[in-house]
Amino acid sequence: MAPHATPGSLAPDEALRARARKVIPGGMWGHMNVARLPPGYPQFFRSARGCRLWDVQGTEYIDLMCGYGPMVLGYGDPDVEAAAAEQRGRGDLMTGPAACQVELAELVVETIPHADWVLFAKNGSDAMTACVTIARAGTQRRKVLVARGSYHGAAPWCTPSLAGVTAEDRAHILHYDYNDIASLERAADEAGRDLAAVLVTAFRHDVKRPQEAPTPAFAQAMRRICDAAGAALVLDDVRAGFRLHIGGSWEPYGVRPDLCGWSKAIANGHPLAAVTGNDRFREAAQQVYVTGSFWCSAVPMAAAIATIKKLRATGAIATMEAMGRRLREGLEQQARAHDLPLRQTGPVQMPLIMFDDDQDFTLGHRFVLEALQRGVYMHPWHNMFLSAAHQVADIDRVLEATDGALRQVAASVDRRHPAKAAQ
Amino acid sequence: MAPHATPGSLAPDEALRARARKVIPGGMWGHMNVARLPPGYPQFFRSARGCRLWDVQGTEYIDLMCGYGPMVLGYGDPDVEAAAAEQRGRGDLMTGPAACQVELAELVVETIPHADWVLFAKNGSDAMTACVTIARAGTQRRKVLVARGSYHGAAPWCTPSLAGVTAEDRAHILHYDYNDIASLERAADEAGRDLAAVLVTAFRHDVKRPQEAPTPAFAQAMRRICDAAGAALVLDDVRAGFRLHIGGSWEPYGVRPDLCGWSKAIANGHPLAAVTGNDRFREAAQQVYVTGSFWCSAVPMAAAIATIKKLRATGAIATMEAMGRRLREGLEQQARAHDLPLRQTGPVQMPLIMFDDDQDFTLGHRFVLEALQRGVYMHPWHNMFLSAAHQVADIDRVLEATDGALRQVAASVDRRHPAKAAQ
Repeated sequence: MAPHATPGSLAPDEALRARARKVIPGGMWGHMNVARLPPGYPQFFRSARGCRLWDVQGTEYIDLMCGYGPMVLGYGDPDVEAAAAEQRGRGDLMTGPAACQVELAELVVETIPHADWVLFAKNGSDAMTACVTIARAGTQRRKVLVARGSYHGAAPWCTPSLAGVTAEDRAHILHYDYNDIASLERAADEAGRDLAAVLVTAFRHDVKRPQEAPTPAFAQAMRRICDAAGAALVLDDVRAGFRLHIGGSWEPYGVRPDLCGWSKAIANGHPLAAVTGNDRFREAAQQVYVTGSFWCSAVPMAAAIATIKKLRATGAIATMEAMGRRLREGLEQQARAHDLPLRQTGPVQMPLIMFDDDQDFTLGHRFVLEALQRGVYMHPWHNMFLSAAHQVADIDRVLEATDGALRQVAASVDRRHPAKAAQ
Repeated sequence: MAPHATPGSLAPDEALRARARKVIPGGMWGHMNVARLPPGYPQFFRSARGCRLWDVQGTEYIDLMCGYGPMVLGYGDPDVEAAAAEQRGRGDLMTGPAACQVELAELVVETIPHADWVLFAKNGSDAMTACVTIARAGTQRRKVLVARGSYHGAAPWCTPSLAGVTAEDRAHILHYDYNDIASLERAADEAGRDLAAVLVTAFRHDVKRPQEAPTPAFAQAMRRICDAAGAALVLDDVRAGFRLHIGGSWEPYGVRPDLCGWSKAIANGHPLAAVTGNDRFREAAQQVYVTGSFWCSAVPMAAAIATIKKLRATGAIATMEAMGRRLREGLEQQARAHDLPLRQTGPVQMPLIMFDDDQDFTLGHRFVLEALQRGVYMHPWHNMFLSAAHQVADIDRVLEATDGALRQVAASVDRRHPAKAAQ
């Protein structure tokens, strides 16, 4: 583990940022822009291996973001990379797909209980937009229900920023509140006979607020409402897919979607997305025209086959869950010991760590920066991601860092409340 | 070159198609679906190298589609693959970009005269949708002019099929006719003060009709109309970029866009897209939220650096043009010799070959199938693509195949017109 970076050693990252600002608007775009994070986070990385990440100044981190999700078996997983290399030696993008496209499609349909068919794409946004288009084509209706605050991608109909978005881009989007059955019913009533689809994320993983599992009643109501209306239940498993349950994140609820969007972890970091659907929407999926220059590239498909097979064969999801529980329990003990109002939410393998009464993230930012300086890359307000490469020693190393970080946070809290510090 | 495939040897492709039909709607989606082509085309490929392609039954082809464009230096180009492998050894998708993102951004801005900045994405559709969104954000207007029949991607606002598309998805799209200045002026007048952007493809590369270069007067009118209206001129160089001119396809016209979309050939088959823009739209580009899980992956960026450097250093575009001219001239001679009304259109390195008075593609389909059986993969109604890997011997081998193919076509024409055959 490299020592805590001194201000002077920040130079390579700062130099790259200065160059980037000239040729990239704002120096960076999107979810990996560290302008969203407190000052002190590195923007550029040199390398990654297993659950570890090195920034451009050589500082090593245990990575709790996993590239914002795609890395699920470890950076550079040898089995996935061997499969990718083998396919690459023959062909990647060609003037048509390779046989592995069929093999992957069969594996996905075999692995995902609700899936009768699959299409492949490149972005989570591609997958979710295709789900909406297929639902509309299949129902011959227009209205789509989306939970307030849910992220479904960065296309005009769903992107969080309204810059450059027209009112018509969202003309047929109606909102409900996650886990609020009455609001769901109201929105469905409002859509009436024009209800094409109800979209729902695997759990409520909105940024900057505690995460929420769907209640079983909510998941069941969603299925019931869609069935009554003849609408498509569309699960957005882009972020959570392949981390919570190999058959899809709502399998434990016994509620199956009609259409489901996937990406991120499906190929352990290789660029791939997918739409799965049931036979009710097969013909609609055939009618819509969705495609992209690289959607039939063979290497990410070979990587996905290896990823899904390894997830199935090794009990990787159970490993992630066990490691997540170890982390959560360790943090709970530390929070009690330091008398800090730490709030851990979300599935243990996709945790969000916040502090109560910390709307401006004063404590949250201090915590993650102290952890960063101790070699652990965390996020203050976006759910994090564990991988099967995070082993007991790594989690214990994380807990060592968080203990020191929480001690500093506790000290700062005491300084803000001298009366308490004086007790 | 493998011998002409016998019907029995089709079995591996047919077997894969039968499996695919069960798990993929219609067995295949999008532009690589050979259901769009006459029966006889292989759907699945085993490998690719240089300008050659092998289908799953081992038949070898000289590929005139280049993966529908991305392959510009040759499949598995050693320089591009070495750069990709070097970056892959360190990291691809990480929890932030690698330094090569800045290096690529600088190289793009240095190479493309109109570009003051660049953003990276995955699909051509991503790039063109971002161009529209940035133009709207920058102008605070909504209307977008698109040429009738032009392809700009597979998002709901532009996809060729209307299945699942709502009227509102296209509420602010107005149409003009390519190379028709009066129609452009009418559409701009109709948009009035709400005109945000005028989109135009590098040349008229609509499918199933002769290709057209933009007239200089049309290109200049486009710039003049955008300037007068304060709208963004958006060049769609997704398909033609890096094949006609290294600085962008409209450089020879002296007409520069405000925003430009790129993908396909930018990284010789590695998945990458880009939006370039001038300083007028820099702030707008910073305001819009566009992102994707794999948009900061480092390997395609390293591949793009190697691709652009090699295109610049080797005169690859001039090579493609020379090879395209050799092919065109050879075909012209053959058409005369066989007395066939062959019509070659488009830039020589992106040719479209059709027959006059062949609306149902009777002659076109016969021609490409005969060429296919002689080891050359052509397309009857989509522009084709040459690469820098197509050398003189390859073009001559193509011409050998087309000569035989045209002889068969001529024979069939004579059979359709017994009077002429009898002369």
